[in-house]
Amino acid sequence: MSEDERIVPVILSGGAGTRLWPLSSPSTPKQFLRLAGDRTMLQETALRVDDRKAFAAPLVIGSADHAHLLATQLTEAGTIPSALVLEPSARNTAAAIALAALAVGPGRLLLVMPSDHVVRDTAAFRAAVEAGRPLAAQDWLVTFGIRPTHAETGFGYIRRGEALAPGAHRVDRFVEKPDVETAQFYLDDGGYDWNGGIFLFRAGRYLDALRDHAPAIHEAVSAAMAASSPGAEIRPDADAFAAAPSVSIDYAVMEKDDRVAVVPVEMGWADIGSWDALHEMRERDARGNVATGPAALIDSDNCLVHSAGRPVVAVGVRDLIVVVGDDAVLVLPRGQSQRVKEALERAPK
Amino acid sequence: MSEDERIVPVILSGGAGTRLWPLSSPSTPKQFLRLAGDRTMLQETALRVDDRKAFAAPLVIGSADHAHLLATQLTEAGTIPSALVLEPSARNTAAAIALAALAVGPGRLLLVMPSDHVVRDTAAFRAAVEAGRPLAAQDWLVTFGIRPTHAETGFGYIRRGEALAPGAHRVDRFVEKPDVETAQFYLDDGGYDWNGGIFLFRAGRYLDALRDHAPAIHEAVSAAMAASSPGAEIRPDADAFAAAPSVSIDYAVMEKDDRVAVVPVEMGWADIGSWDALHEMRERDARGNVATGPAALIDSDNCLVHSAGRPVVAVGVRDLIVVVGDDAVLVLPRGQSQRVKEALERAPK
Repeated sequence: MSEDERIVPVILSGGAGTRLWPLSSPSTPKQFLRLAGDRTMLQETALRVDDRKAFAAPLVIGSADHAHLLATQLTEAGTIPSALVLEPSARNTAAAIALAALAVGPGRLLLVMPSDHVVRDTAAFRAAVEAGRPLAAQDWLVTFGIRPTHAETGFGYIRRGEALAPGAHRVDRFVEKPDVETAQFYLDDGGYDWNGGIFLFRAGRYLDALRDHAPAIHEAVSAAMAASSPGAEIRPDADAFAAAPSVSIDYAVMEKDDRVAVVPVEMGWADIGSWDALHEMRERDARGNVATGPAALIDSDNCLVHSAGRPVVAVGVRDLIVVVGDDAVLVLPRGQSQRVKEALERAPK
Repeated sequence: MSEDERIVPVILSGGAGTRLWPLSSPSTPKQFLRLAGDRTMLQETALRVDDRKAFAAPLVIGSADHAHLLATQLTEAGTIPSALVLEPSARNTAAAIALAALAVGPGRLLLVMPSDHVVRDTAAFRAAVEAGRPLAAQDWLVTFGIRPTHAETGFGYIRRGEALAPGAHRVDRFVEKPDVETAQFYLDDGGYDWNGGIFLFRAGRYLDALRDHAPAIHEAVSAAMAASSPGAEIRPDADAFAAAPSVSIDYAVMEKDDRVAVVPVEMGWADIGSWDALHEMRERDARGNVATGPAALIDSDNCLVHSAGRPVVAVGVRDLIVVVGDDAVLVLPRGQSQRVKEALERAPK
């Protein structure tokens, strides 16, 4: 396989999520945390595409504020990125991916991946990418559909249309995050997948679609890249980039284009969007507990106790989430982890 | 009032309690904590006897390990001790009080006070001391009896005997910590008080009683003081002091002597021996919560959240104790704070 045919992984590391506060924070978003094991989510993502026969070195996009964290964590994982694109401001995924597309050149296939998802079955993931590759080469915008396991209301859904190839369908339509009844309908129907935010397409095809559907983004990002200095660390021009409308790739391009394919895949995918989700995902002991870091649970049931620093001990508690971060401590009942935002806002300084 | 007639407060600061872990610890026992307000328990104790018309400057006894903490906190409270006696090892209260008695000379009246008790009504406390003073001058060993408010099983009790003077009785007997039925009997009977561990007597009278009832302690402490260097900071000889049996004043002297008086007093006394006791004692908000330090409670009831450092937020919890110390975090249900010892033993290092 010659170099030009290898897929370029594009790792999106611009997220600044606060849903896992007090572990995640603006200075250390979720992708930089060791939530599920010894490696950070960013490192797990890089290692998912470390087969250099199939994949070129990844292009990693993140905030200029995290330049040091990105470089350190990638080095620790043994990943040398083909380029590190440091965004001067956060302008959402449509603009971020356009930076990548301009950086690599129009002919290359891009595999766009969030840096904060769990994928347990790497083989299934890579097989899905291979299934999508011929379609991407034929200028389809390919997205990957996660087979739903429950009536989730926190994700968008994709309705599969006609079959295009083995394991690939035209997208009939994208649908917004549903209410719980609609989510149950989608689950029962069987014709819907979760929109996992993973994409495969030719760089030039994406830029063409962006110019058609969201010309202001295309223009701003092109100007920002034209004024950037070249090299392994790309810093787009701040003023030009700031002019890009902040819109997701789904809304700016995927939902508007008429040549969009979906490759459904079951690969042990999870978006750890809450402490409850982490408790669900992690291996629990016989009493339903998950203890991470210097944490001890005594005579307790169905708890998550996570410390990133100081030791924590819980005695005789039930269905409780306790998180000890470097800067704060959070306590709330299991099933209520959507209240983290409230806690963060009310936390004493 | 000539100097010789003033009472010498003796503040016992040798406690190393772990019942308020993770706030209290061997390096910072309870008396050095700001549990009930802006001042530490030691400072509150010193300020309770800061009327220099009635009281001489206090003599403070504590561990040599806490020399710096003692000096700093006393200075902060504006208290200049007449002497700081630094124990080379912990040998319990009978020996500690003997150090004080030898340091001040036989003719002076000593008011012995633990440094980690709450006394809300200082006027009542001082009135009780005045009530006890004539008896102490007549060589009674005077103890102060706390009027019980509930059937407490954690304290010893004192049965009042014949009246000796207004507000003072001969002690009929001391009784050990009772079971709950016996405690209820004492409460209903009305003739029993809690043994609060506060004493008033002439220094020489105490030393004589100690020589009679516990000669080994008297001998060891005398030798330790003979070999100490004089001055405002007294360091008894370590080897000699280590030879003193480790026995409480109650067991070594008070329970054995036949000239012991009790002055019952209601003075808002509390021994904060647990997190539950602190929750009971502190002023609670309309939902029964106590939050101390940088601590926020959202939609929660009947909780104690105490931080000595990092901010802590609890959301949607009930009947929970959360304590954030410098070195560890503790979570347990209200009513189970006796399990602190278990937590401390199992805390990850």
